[in-house]
Amino acid sequence: MGESGKIKKDKLQADIVAGNGLMDRRSLLRGALFSAGIAAAGAGIARADDGASVGVGENAPEWMKMPGRPFSGYGTPSKWQEKVQRIFTIAPGRAGTGVSRTPLHLLEGTLTPEGLHFERHHNGVPDIDPGRHELFIHGMVKQPLAFSLETLLRYPMETRIHFVECAGNSGIFGAPQPAQITAGELNGLLSCSEWTGVRLSTLLAEAGVTKEAKWVIAEGADAAAMSRSIPLEKCMDDAMIALYQNGEAIRPEQGFPMRLLLPGFEGNMNVKWLRRLNVTDAPVFARDETSHYTELMPSGKARQFMFLMRAKSAILKPSFGMSMKGPGLYEISGLAWSGAGRISKVEVSADAGQTWAAAKLTEPILPKALTRFRMPWHWDGRPSTLMSRATDETGESQPTRASWIALYAPGQGYHFNGIQSWGIDADGSVKHVYA
Amino acid sequence: MGESGKIKKDKLQADIVAGNGLMDRRSLLRGALFSAGIAAAGAGIARADDGASVGVGENAPEWMKMPGRPFSGYGTPSKWQEKVQRIFTIAPGRAGTGVSRTPLHLLEGTLTPEGLHFERHHNGVPDIDPGRHELFIHGMVKQPLAFSLETLLRYPMETRIHFVECAGNSGIFGAPQPAQITAGELNGLLSCSEWTGVRLSTLLAEAGVTKEAKWVIAEGADAAAMSRSIPLEKCMDDAMIALYQNGEAIRPEQGFPMRLLLPGFEGNMNVKWLRRLNVTDAPVFARDETSHYTELMPSGKARQFMFLMRAKSAILKPSFGMSMKGPGLYEISGLAWSGAGRISKVEVSADAGQTWAAAKLTEPILPKALTRFRMPWHWDGRPSTLMSRATDETGESQPTRASWIALYAPGQGYHFNGIQSWGIDADGSVKHVYA
Repeated sequence: MGESGKIKKDKLQADIVAGNGLMDRRSLLRGALFSAGIAAAGAGIARADDGASVGVGENAPEWMKMPGRPFSGYGTPSKWQEKVQRIFTIAPGRAGTGVSRTPLHLLEGTLTPEGLHFERHHNGVPDIDPGRHELFIHGMVKQPLAFSLETLLRYPMETRIHFVECAGNSGIFGAPQPAQITAGELNGLLSCSEWTGVRLSTLLAEAGVTKEAKWVIAEGADAAAMSRSIPLEKCMDDAMIALYQNGEAIRPEQGFPMRLLLPGFEGNMNVKWLRRLNVTDAPVFARDETSHYTELMPSGKARQFMFLMRAKSAILKPSFGMSMKGPGLYEISGLAWSGAGRISKVEVSADAGQTWAAAKLTEPILPKALTRFRMPWHWDGRPSTLMSRATDETGESQPTRASWIALYAPGQGYHFNGIQSWGIDADGSVKHVYA
Repeated sequence: MGESGKIKKDKLQADIVAGNGLMDRRSLLRGALFSAGIAAAGAGIARADDGASVGVGENAPEWMKMPGRPFSGYGTPSKWQEKVQRIFTIAPGRAGTGVSRTPLHLLEGTLTPEGLHFERHHNGVPDIDPGRHELFIHGMVKQPLAFSLETLLRYPMETRIHFVECAGNSGIFGAPQPAQITAGELNGLLSCSEWTGVRLSTLLAEAGVTKEAKWVIAEGADAAAMSRSIPLEKCMDDAMIALYQNGEAIRPEQGFPMRLLLPGFEGNMNVKWLRRLNVTDAPVFARDETSHYTELMPSGKARQFMFLMRAKSAILKPSFGMSMKGPGLYEISGLAWSGAGRISKVEVSADAGQTWAAAKLTEPILPKALTRFRMPWHWDGRPSTLMSRATDETGESQPTRASWIALYAPGQGYHFNGIQSWGIDADGSVKHVYA
């Protein structure tokens, strides 16, 4: 990147939009060259232009000189990508309750591969025979109903891209010192998929919800019988019985053969392996809405039923574990999302929040889905602090970490959405900092 | 589905929008119940409401009575889905040239799981060490350049959802009799992914294309050195060096560590394992643009360099191999796409093309991406012929199969985009028909 440091200073200045080198997102169109490619003189050009205008020349790499491997029924990632795995906090191979995280810092774009969707299980992944699984709708309904998978597949479907985020995601930001771990370890209880299934309101209309009904108790067919109380209003809005994920049958870790999808609500409520929807007039106060997923307030009381995942963002490139290769042009890139709707703006700061500039958002910007943001940055090689701040279409922005902490009692780790910061040292190393 | 046959006839009539039972796509909102759920009386309700308001009751299925399986680093589909595989036409395990198809009829939504993306190889899948792979840009440029993967990852990226379709997809529609094979076998040289990578125009600008340049010869690092000539204009437009697919590193079968992506152009030109971009003033007349992928015209001459994949659609549900379970309400669903831009309309006919009605298109409708369409249909149990007809934003619609055939010499099998038809028999079986 030595070359890129040589951009003419006046040209660079014209493209600066905020302090410490943040550049206009259109600067690339105006000829701000990254110039990271190596001039292919001498040996380089000999490797490229090896006398064969088309075909395998003498200088071709060895993998061009033998037949490749054959076709496969269901492909897997390259063996060179074997370190791109979900991140465990408990030992792999142990069932029971726990999580694995999506390695967000190793991925790009906005979707999560099915095999890397985060996991949160309460007693392992049940092996459900889809031919014997039933979904019941009962309780305060005129006609209790049972649905097999085959029956559900008859219904009209919808396809939507939505994120799922665990309420406990990023809870470690409550710790007094910034954890020196990757962006995936910090924020990876977050994934985004294209979901296809049946709108729950269609099924509830068939069952005929009675006037007294206000809640729906959703229960999973796992050995924890994981249960949550869900406002009927959400069930009649955009809730879905999801059957497909990124085009194929939903994966076992995400609820095969069916899960409840409540776009924008905390992950735990999106009950996997969905077996029962019991329509009631009151919440059931299940284990996961009393012992977990409540917000402990400074008064000592816990606030319950705070369902919405608020506006949030994280810079993934650069992030902890990466290193900058000297001064020059870089792309800052990350993800923003909100359970309240579309992301309307992501601002980035390279001077610890003194000045901000709007990043480019990847189209289409979808409601309750991950949005990729990007911003060119000319790093001058001095210590810098990077931050991102998302705003959603309701107008809500991320608070600072300090403001967020002040809202709750110490140790409250659910629903963190404060601003996150990376510190860049002069040697190019990236640290997690509170700023 | 016996119940659903009992919809009041006058209510049904009010929702009819085209011949033979096609219904308004808003009819569901007006209370047209699918009623496929089974009234959960007696034994059913006992299974659901087994005395435990929350938790594992006596009647729970056995998978709720033992811990599930543990976490995993990279997940795989359910064992119950093992038949959902790419479809081979040559024996699996054989390298060389050939294809495998995406089982479109077994999928839903618009995206293709990475493991099921169709394959088209000319000498197998090379095992490329990403640390040693180089991309060269040379020929009519001011400065030849070499890019390692690490270097390319420094550049600004873009993320876009696009389909890739082989020029030979659906070529079997030229056969005199309709092949009785699945929709995936007929149309599965078609997949859709979220691609992330570097815009090619950024790299060409750095190399400095000279005034004489008109074409770019792209070459892959496979043992066939697969090469194609690409108009410079396309390379300066929306062409991308794709590095990620659905969030993760591009799969080996799709070109790991990098492929050329030419949105809307025939699949073969989207050169995988991309190694060279040789800027020239003329096409190279490579093997795959002379012996293949040309259009044989009635005059006996072959038309070359017909790159664009035109407006096209296929109904996937119902389709060959499925069977209707008696008269009643069904959802007709399928995919539409065009290499020229966005799909503007998909019309469906249930009476062999006598009358048509517009299907509901799944949002967001993206340019050069697959679009899912859906239409409710009340099947009265009599023999019927289903068709779909896509129109894109340029105003171009699919021709009939007969019109398409008449354009070419017999046996010309590239770029088929005629209207496709399924015949439903009184017994509910679905056949491929020419209508």
